Amino acid sequence: MEVLIVGTGDMARGIGLRLVRGGHRVRIAAREPDQAADLAEDLGANAVGEPLDSAAGAEVIVLALPYEGSKEIARLWADQLVGKIVIDICNPVDYDTFDRLVTPPGKSAADEIAEAAPGAKVVKAFNTTFASRLAKTGQLDVFIAGDEAEARKLVAGLCTDAELRPIDVGDRKHAAALEAIQLLHMKVQGEIQGNWSTALTFAA
Amino acid sequence: MEVLIVGTGDMARGIGLRLVRGGHRVRIAAREPDQAADLAEDLGANAVGEPLDSAAGAEVIVLALPYEGSKEIARLWADQLVGKIVIDICNPVDYDTFDRLVTPPGKSAADEIAEAAPGAKVVKAFNTTFASRLAKTGQLDVFIAGDEAEARKLVAGLCTDAELRPIDVGDRKHAAALEAIQLLHMKVQGEIQGNWSTALTFAA
Repeated sequence: MEVLIVGTGDMARGIGLRLVRGGHRVRIAAREPDQAADLAEDLGANAVGEPLDSAAGAEVIVLALPYEGSKEIARLWADQLVGKIVIDICNPVDYDTFDRLVTPPGKSAADEIAEAAPGAKVVKAFNTTFASRLAKTGQLDVFIAGDEAEARKLVAGLCTDAELRPIDVGDRKHAAALEAIQLLHMKVQGEIQGNWSTALTFAA
Repeated sequence: MEVLIVGTGDMARGIGLRLVRGGHRVRIAAREPDQAADLAEDLGANAVGEPLDSAAGAEVIVLALPYEGSKEIARLWADQLVGKIVIDICNPVDYDTFDRLVTPPGKSAADEIAEAAPGAKVVKAFNTTFASRLAKTGQLDVFIAGDEAEARKLVAGLCTDAELRPIDVGDRKHAAALEAIQLLHMKVQGEIQGNWSTALTFAA
């Protein structure tokens, strides 16, 4: 499958690595085409870089961007995202305090992205996986929420291919819980000496 | 320290076991004094059973009851809980669907218990630990939320004594996230073949 990842940060790199390892083709899109090309080169022969032009040709788009950037691309590309699977990985955290989310009451970032791109199949995933863990090998739980069961299933398949354990939690309304727990996961990194390398897990 | 546990179910047993192992004295209170006495006997010499009469003498009270029962005891004992630490472990889950919480919008069960017993220091804890894991030995993350820092610290100390890893997530407003993620944890037990023995963890 061909997956378009928007962004060139650590999360774009981590998800890209996993997807390529899983046997998928990856396109990296960014405002700075050089950065996209650099990341694609690091990912190997199954990855290409491109400017931030179009989602055409991609069945799955990963918004590997912060909260505001994710909403912006969803708005900008609203027309071309209709019918496509849009993976929202963002954490709408107040980075000044790490003590609250910045989403409107009762709404998740995934809800807002779905509102910005009506007709897109928005799937929350990868918001609880730190980039450092994606970049390594080894199991990792990926929590998946979205209103279209077949979209969740496809994302779960991408995870399984990439040695990740998908945990399908159901409808998009549950994305709020994933964002809320990840706020706490980020908040306590110092206390638990996590150093941004821990993983939210339903451990056996 | 003396801890009063209200309830005789699997969670009362699991928390009681850990506390006794941690060197604390445990009182088990229940409407059926025979059941309280039976559980206390199982817990050993540092535990006693008693009827559901009074919280007098206990600095810490664990409401090891379901959601409705926890609220009921908080209301019933409101006067005597003033100034005491009340540990709320409940999960206000719709057990018919496992797909929603039954709390009012914007409120956690911990919030409701705090409203029912004004002046009590309500601490959310143990709601993400299944009883089967408490009953075993071995590390387990216990997430702690509440508005009084010294109450959270005391509960964290009880956890440490009991070979549990306390994770202090801060104010009571974060209890909602703990209840929401545990709903999902319960919901996916079948999918992840958890058999009610998994643990929510920020894993290293």
